[in-house]
Amino acid sequence: MTYNVAILGASGYTGAELVRIIATHPGLRIAALSADRKAGQAMASVYPQLRHLDLPVLQTIEEIDFGTIDLAFAALPHGLSQALVRDLPETVKVVDLGADFRLRDPAEYEKWYGAPHVAVELQKTAVYGLTEFYRDEIKGARLVAGTGCNAATVQFALRPLIEAELIDLDNIICDLKNGISGAGRSLKENMLFTERATDVLGYSQGGKHRHLGEFDQEFSAIAGRKVEIMFTPHLVPMSRGILASCYLKGDAEAIHAALSARYADEPFIVVLPFGQMPGTGAVAGSNFCHIGVTGDRVPGRALVVSTLDNLNKGSSGQAVQNANLMLGLPETEGLMLAPVFP
Amino acid sequence: MTYNVAILGASGYTGAELVRIIATHPGLRIAALSADRKAGQAMASVYPQLRHLDLPVLQTIEEIDFGTIDLAFAALPHGLSQALVRDLPETVKVVDLGADFRLRDPAEYEKWYGAPHVAVELQKTAVYGLTEFYRDEIKGARLVAGTGCNAATVQFALRPLIEAELIDLDNIICDLKNGISGAGRSLKENMLFTERATDVLGYSQGGKHRHLGEFDQEFSAIAGRKVEIMFTPHLVPMSRGILASCYLKGDAEAIHAALSARYADEPFIVVLPFGQMPGTGAVAGSNFCHIGVTGDRVPGRALVVSTLDNLNKGSSGQAVQNANLMLGLPETEGLMLAPVFP
Amino acid sequence: MTYNVAILGASGYTGAELVRIIATHPGLRIAALSADRKAGQAMASVYPQLRHLDLPVLQTIEEIDFGTIDLAFAALPHGLSQALVRDLPETVKVVDLGADFRLRDPAEYEKWYGAPHVAVELQKTAVYGLTEFYRDEIKGARLVAGTGCNAATVQFALRPLIEAELIDLDNIICDLKNGISGAGRSLKENMLFTERATDVLGYSQGGKHRHLGEFDQEFSAIAGRKVEIMFTPHLVPMSRGILASCYLKGDAEAIHAALSARYADEPFIVVLPFGQMPGTGAVAGSNFCHIGVTGDRVPGRALVVSTLDNLNKGSSGQAVQNANLMLGLPETEGLMLAPVFP
Amino acid sequence: MTYNVAILGASGYTGAELVRIIATHPGLRIAALSADRKAGQAMASVYPQLRHLDLPVLQTIEEIDFGTIDLAFAALPHGLSQALVRDLPETVKVVDLGADFRLRDPAEYEKWYGAPHVAVELQKTAVYGLTEFYRDEIKGARLVAGTGCNAATVQFALRPLIEAELIDLDNIICDLKNGISGAGRSLKENMLFTERATDVLGYSQGGKHRHLGEFDQEFSAIAGRKVEIMFTPHLVPMSRGILASCYLKGDAEAIHAALSARYADEPFIVVLPFGQMPGTGAVAGSNFCHIGVTGDRVPGRALVVSTLDNLNKGSSGQAVQNANLMLGLPETEGLMLAPVFP
Repeated sequence: MTYNVAILGASGYTGAELVRIIATHPGLRIAALSADRKAGQAMASVYPQLRHLDLPVLQTIEEIDFGTIDLAFAALPHGLSQALVRDLPETVKVVDLGADFRLRDPAEYEKWYGAPHVAVELQKTAVYGLTEFYRDEIKGARLVAGTGCNAATVQFALRPLIEAELIDLDNIICDLKNGISGAGRSLKENMLFTERATDVLGYSQGGKHRHLGEFDQEFSAIAGRKVEIMFTPHLVPMSRGILASCYLKGDAEAIHAALSARYADEPFIVVLPFGQMPGTGAVAGSNFCHIGVTGDRVPGRALVVSTLDNLNKGSSGQAVQNANLMLGLPETEGLMLAPVFP
Repeated sequence: MTYNVAILGASGYTGAELVRIIATHPGLRIAALSADRKAGQAMASVYPQLRHLDLPVLQTIEEIDFGTIDLAFAALPHGLSQALVRDLPETVKVVDLGADFRLRDPAEYEKWYGAPHVAVELQKTAVYGLTEFYRDEIKGARLVAGTGCNAATVQFALRPLIEAELIDLDNIICDLKNGISGAGRSLKENMLFTERATDVLGYSQGGKHRHLGEFDQEFSAIAGRKVEIMFTPHLVPMSRGILASCYLKGDAEAIHAALSARYADEPFIVVLPFGQMPGTGAVAGSNFCHIGVTGDRVPGRALVVSTLDNLNKGSSGQAVQNANLMLGLPETEGLMLAPVFP
Repeated sequence: MTYNVAILGASGYTGAELVRIIATHPGLRIAALSADRKAGQAMASVYPQLRHLDLPVLQTIEEIDFGTIDLAFAALPHGLSQALVRDLPETVKVVDLGADFRLRDPAEYEKWYGAPHVAVELQKTAVYGLTEFYRDEIKGARLVAGTGCNAATVQFALRPLIEAELIDLDNIICDLKNGISGAGRSLKENMLFTERATDVLGYSQGGKHRHLGEFDQEFSAIAGRKVEIMFTPHLVPMSRGILASCYLKGDAEAIHAALSARYADEPFIVVLPFGQMPGTGAVAGSNFCHIGVTGDRVPGRALVVSTLDNLNKGSSGQAVQNANLMLGLPETEGLMLAPVFP
Repeated sequence: MTYNVAILGASGYTGAELVRIIATHPGLRIAALSADRKAGQAMASVYPQLRHLDLPVLQTIEEIDFGTIDLAFAALPHGLSQALVRDLPETVKVVDLGADFRLRDPAEYEKWYGAPHVAVELQKTAVYGLTEFYRDEIKGARLVAGTGCNAATVQFALRPLIEAELIDLDNIICDLKNGISGAGRSLKENMLFTERATDVLGYSQGGKHRHLGEFDQEFSAIAGRKVEIMFTPHLVPMSRGILASCYLKGDAEAIHAALSARYADEPFIVVLPFGQMPGTGAVAGSNFCHIGVTGDRVPGRALVVSTLDNLNKGSSGQAVQNANLMLGLPETEGLMLAPVFP
């Protein structure tokens, strides 16, 4: 069975990554591509690497006939999905790659995103898209909210540890190194090649990053108490990848055992042998997440490092994984592409 | 039908790229991996990006039972394949990714590689592996000699033009920009990150590059006279990709028409509309080759630019394409992976 | 003696490079900095690497008191210098880093830049700023027109050869590899880090690049006949540097001898021993230009490779070198900073 | 007054950086360069970027006439300086850029470096080379032990805070992002361009990095109790720079005030306004260190980020700063070179 999908916002990097993945996915067919400002153009002129594919011309969202679409991927700037998804036919399932439906509490949404949510009722039906932890709900969902890419990276490292009460909840520090594609394809002076090629620089430092809303929501729910991690991302000179170094208080071997057990049957989450630590290069271009654990010379301290490709497992790969579940396809279909290195 | 393949020299970059491609190839199964100095290690420890795959442990070549192998990919340092292939059972088909069997004339081999060929009889049976031009011979071959990566890039641009007598054979200048992976994984001071990250530098300048042997052989055969192009590669700070800028004397529009016609039915060779020029980023990680043509303000001058991924279409992708033909599989099987960008 | 200089357009990369050079130049004092859109800001907020310097606040050009200025560097977008320089007090010497005064023939200017020149009388007084070839005129000039960065790189390789009639004027092909800073700091989607980090791509191909106007003017004047070289620049993933590979017909050893003799006494132009070839990394951050020469296996062909830092010797270093001459300072003052590698 | 200096180990990156700095230093003259394996070569062939300088030919250490040398910089692999410095004439002052004399306690040296110290008496006379904190001792020293580059970066952030008792000594976490040049020029497979260009990877994780010996020694001495920070460096794809993100418990504004006060008169240490955070690009190629401070949404948490160029302020710049003091020259002489960006 092949399902028809639409990609809304196909001119951004996560849109292009969706096309790349779906190009060799046997169960999905790209039936429509939207890009408001580039409507009318061929995808080949926006992304020459997709030139060999037989793809629909870019349209405006209004031009799409959603009657033929089984599932829509919304890869739109934050804030644009809410009204859009509300107005789509009920027959269209939706995976939203943006931030609009990630936070269940409308007050939290407004706090982190600076405007009230316009589709509060719809929000209540959305399932948080961290597949490995919401698999059953995703299978039956009409609307799945893809997680933030940083949010995914860190949650894979920490959720099992919070659940098993293995770490001190008041001393969680997550330092992230982020590839530049996380900033998208929009024009910003500080994202020019020359600005980033020889610079490492933190951003949203001091507890200001919006993904904190997701961490607060998820970790507090698991712990049954308020959990507020310290979290800082840093731009490094590479295009893809996130490496999260999580400094924890707990027993490193117990932590490793808990993570290994939790992910033993997960096809995409790989826990390395104790003391082996992962790098971004070994997951780039793929839907895999690698996790490593080591102790410290001081007992009771641990370091958990988690890495994934922000455009893939952190966004578009996750989205396809969720779409597979929503459509009744095998979860790994189209997603076993090996990482590209070097 | 699934065929058993062995990869000899799996610890180098072309070996790893073969594993990456074959990982999602439905018709090939990796039955053996060799790496002399790393024999006994798991592929995951040599290449962590391949950790999710269920692969054989690295062996020495001597340890491999070739009775179970349908086809061997030899991704060995230059000079090692000759005796090896000579001694393999006749039942094993071979795609050699090295230089040992590329030159049909033993004297030419000795001139460019500095030592006499040790398997001259076998050399006579080898087919040159530029698939799009030796397809029929490859189908029936037992031994196919993969082309040099530079040699492939330039030949895709020039062969149809020489054949159609569209260009001045005494004024062919090919300037190449090369990703660093072309140098392989061996230890050289000038290939350290710090040496290459902020440097552009030519190499084998002055008509000394070994791939000239291939150009001479192929272009002279097509033209029916001696053709000696001027060819210079340059290292640029990226891992993958070759961009060949070919400066020619001829009519640019006729050149474009000839290339477009020649490759109209080729699945992996894409000729861009006249005046559009390709970049390496749009083919990286794939088996595609993009070609662009433009004229000059001075009539009678033309620029043809050809680009491909040296590890893929320039080496391991080409090798799988040839293996498909040799084994009777569909030529494009396992090779339609879209390029990875950004 | 210390001279007061103004830098007009200090928020661009060549403006910042001027500040960096002048920071340790004993004969120049930065008395004013202009940046129209960023007027009112401190240079430290626009370029944090200049934070340790005691610099004037950014102003609009109108706010500058030119009565106190001995020399102004105009690092403005093309087209803005013409009217500006015309209206400056005669007492202010000017080094223009833009393209406005490079072409002596107003018709050529209009052809390449698409608009008529608005200060034709002033143009007649401008001296072309290729220091090593216009030194005497520059000493007495009020207005010096800095060369294009590509134009400088190639002219250092070719001028002595054309003058000595050592090369075939109808077969000059110059293939350039260019660092991204040549595109400046303006916002363009194709200059984002993610777009350039894994791509090599030519631009202005097919005889369309504006620096061709400079080549035509200069080479034709030397040769006493029309000379139209073939010239193609390529963006490579690094910030600084231009490497020009010039494919010529002529005797390589005679070419090397001519270049060596011509530059023997030049402090900034270094001709390497025959057969040694230069890389961009060995000149980055400096006012030096390295030139290498080799032959080919086919007699009568030669390769001359020239490299410099586009922001420094190709623009701001050249500008300071010219300012030194115009102000009667030692030519090398402030410019002996060694290249930065790695 | 000009002093004669020797650079021992001139073929490594810190050796080359010393040459670069001293090239425009008015008070120092390079009288001898050693490089055991490359003895007999010209520096220009080892580092073409230094080609314009008139430098002594590389020698073995034994060939150097130390009678004419005022000060020697030892930029040797760890372990080689001990016996060497012991055997030099007393008249030669020494700045050691390696690790041999950093740890005052021979037992600590043996613990971290795996072999007993062979010049224990000499060790007692060595002064730790963190200029801003050992200035007076350095002025009178014969032997100064340059700090580790990571050790310098972190100490600039933390020493004043430990001294002022502003932070919780049991909760100090320092996450570092490191340019690849910190690994030196020696041949290691994991330092090839292709291995590092698209990878971020921690190393010496789990409390194993040798610079911990320096932190323990210095921080415990200041605090008057044992202090053991958690410290993890990460390789990122750039050549130069260290960015240390220090996660602390304390009052962020008090921390900022203490750092600002402490460094107000230091020429090379710049504390940014509260909430502004530094990047490596703004210090690359220079002897400056930038420090930023911000709080967190949770009171009592602070983030201090410190950045410097590992080859310069972290090693060779620091060495020249110390040499200036030891020779009675102005401390900043030759060191005011502005950072190079982009």
